[in-house]
Amino acid sequence: MNHFPTIGGVAHTHSKFATAWAQAEKPIPCLGTTHADYFHGPVPVTPRLKAGEIADDYEQATGASICRMFADLDPDAVPAVLVAGHAPFTWGHTAAEAAHNAVILEYVARMACHTLTINAGFGPLARELHDKHFLRKHGRNAYYGQVKKR
Amino acid sequence: MNHFPTIGGVAHTHSKFATAWAQAEKPIPCLGTTHADYFHGPVPVTPRLKAGEIADDYEQATGASICRMFADLDPDAVPAVLVAGHAPFTWGHTAAEAAHNAVILEYVARMACHTLTINAGFGPLARELHDKHFLRKHGRNAYYGQVKKR
Amino acid sequence: MNHFPTIGGVAHTHSKFATAWAQAEKPIPCLGTTHADYFHGPVPVTPRLKAGEIADDYEQATGASICRMFADLDPDAVPAVLVAGHAPFTWGHTAAEAAHNAVILEYVARMACHTLTINAGFGPLARELHDKHFLRKHGRNAYYGQVKKR
Amino acid sequence: MNHFPTIGGVAHTHSKFATAWAQAEKPIPCLGTTHADYFHGPVPVTPRLKAGEIADDYEQATGASICRMFADLDPDAVPAVLVAGHAPFTWGHTAAEAAHNAVILEYVARMACHTLTINAGFGPLARELHDKHFLRKHGRNAYYGQVKKR
Repeated sequence: MNHFPTIGGVAHTHSKFATAWAQAEKPIPCLGTTHADYFHGPVPVTPRLKAGEIADDYEQATGASICRMFADLDPDAVPAVLVAGHAPFTWGHTAAEAAHNAVILEYVARMACHTLTINAGFGPLARELHDKHFLRKHGRNAYYGQVKKR
Repeated sequence: MNHFPTIGGVAHTHSKFATAWAQAEKPIPCLGTTHADYFHGPVPVTPRLKAGEIADDYEQATGASICRMFADLDPDAVPAVLVAGHAPFTWGHTAAEAAHNAVILEYVARMACHTLTINAGFGPLARELHDKHFLRKHGRNAYYGQVKKR
Repeated sequence: MNHFPTIGGVAHTHSKFATAWAQAEKPIPCLGTTHADYFHGPVPVTPRLKAGEIADDYEQATGASICRMFADLDPDAVPAVLVAGHAPFTWGHTAAEAAHNAVILEYVARMACHTLTINAGFGPLARELHDKHFLRKHGRNAYYGQVKKR
Repeated sequence: MNHFPTIGGVAHTHSKFATAWAQAEKPIPCLGTTHADYFHGPVPVTPRLKAGEIADDYEQATGASICRMFADLDPDAVPAVLVAGHAPFTWGHTAAEAAHNAVILEYVARMACHTLTINAGFGPLARELHDKHFLRKHGRNAYYGQVKKR
């Protein structure tokens, strides 16, 4: 949490659909407003670890790969990552919010998988709608949904 | 409900399979009699909102897009719509009927998705059978099923 | 039941996966021994009803199409059918057995769907293995499983 | 258990996804660390029995086909097998561990199926990561996870 100073909890699951995306080494694209309500962009997947990283200090290298991934991403805007070949990690301002995000991520991952079955080549949600849904619920101009007690 | 004078309730869910169809921006075709028992035609999907509609008055524009969709459709005959990239809305003469239709829609959406997996290029139910199943349960010549208390 | 004198009960469901096969108008092939334990052949799908059959006496025509289907099939050996575009019917010597077969059919239909996802072009179980599994549990040479009280 | 002297229990299920892989006659590839935590390699599928094996002593031939499969595999390292066209068997040092492995196998089989849906041509986990996850939990150099009471 040294790299993510705003967060107060991390959740790690092997939930079925989020893990399937991690195994497929594909970021979860934002295909709808459910995703946009929680994640301000695709849920990224880390690059594979190198053989040396696995051999030397595997658990530490896993964490480092997540930190590198978020060098250019805001962990408050995208509170989830897929570790390649492994499974998801989520986080939040509290442990409860981290666990809540893990449940939402699984739901979003499942709907994205079914969306592929229905329309394989389908692209991401329009940027305007993605922004609208995220920003009406998060940040200083939020106006929608239940009041957050932070 | 100004535009849909016969209805007494609306339900909005992000149920998994109906939302996956909305995300895929595909109307749910009538593939069987379960669908035909409740929806007298495919469940339509609205066109994408324009960037200006999203920016100006998003929630109102969502409702307006549903009303435009039903300018040529009878909301009593097809008591459901998919909002593109978002999720389903259903309705009914009462709030309970709206919620009931949300559950039925999810069931129908799920079976339509599995039908695609089994036979990808499959077309809609024959028009005669679709009409038969809807009309034996709804409208003035209905003769089948439990008595409706309207 | 005039046409199926050995049976004592019929079950009709719109269970999700069996109905998806009926909607896809594909017989459920025997892909494994779970199927073979209960159904001595694929679960057939009826031909579509003609427009006249739907208009004249729809419910009776549905039953008649099942009877025609089993003119050359033994209803004790294959105690299930898919009605095209509609859903499954199962039967048994008792109502309980009919309901039990409906549950088994759904389970078999679901596994057949997943098998297609894993290996799309997969063909049916070898005839010898299909016969072995059915005949070790059913008929006069049965030797396997719990004792049947008929 | 004569051939597998280290084991104390066997579980046989027709669980949905593991059985679908058995029906598809495809080994379950190791697509992620959940698999690697329990199975040190793909979960193999036996070759089809010959017609003579089915006719002569089917149940015995099924067991013999599993034993032949593990002539070159360590049953402690891969405590599961798929019998072609039939279903999975798992085992363990105790009956409870065998049942536990059956549950894990089903979970892994399900995630592998969903991974195929998301990314059809996806290959197995890197060997180094597979080894790392198995060996940090099993064998003499294990250092991760809950203490095993064997």
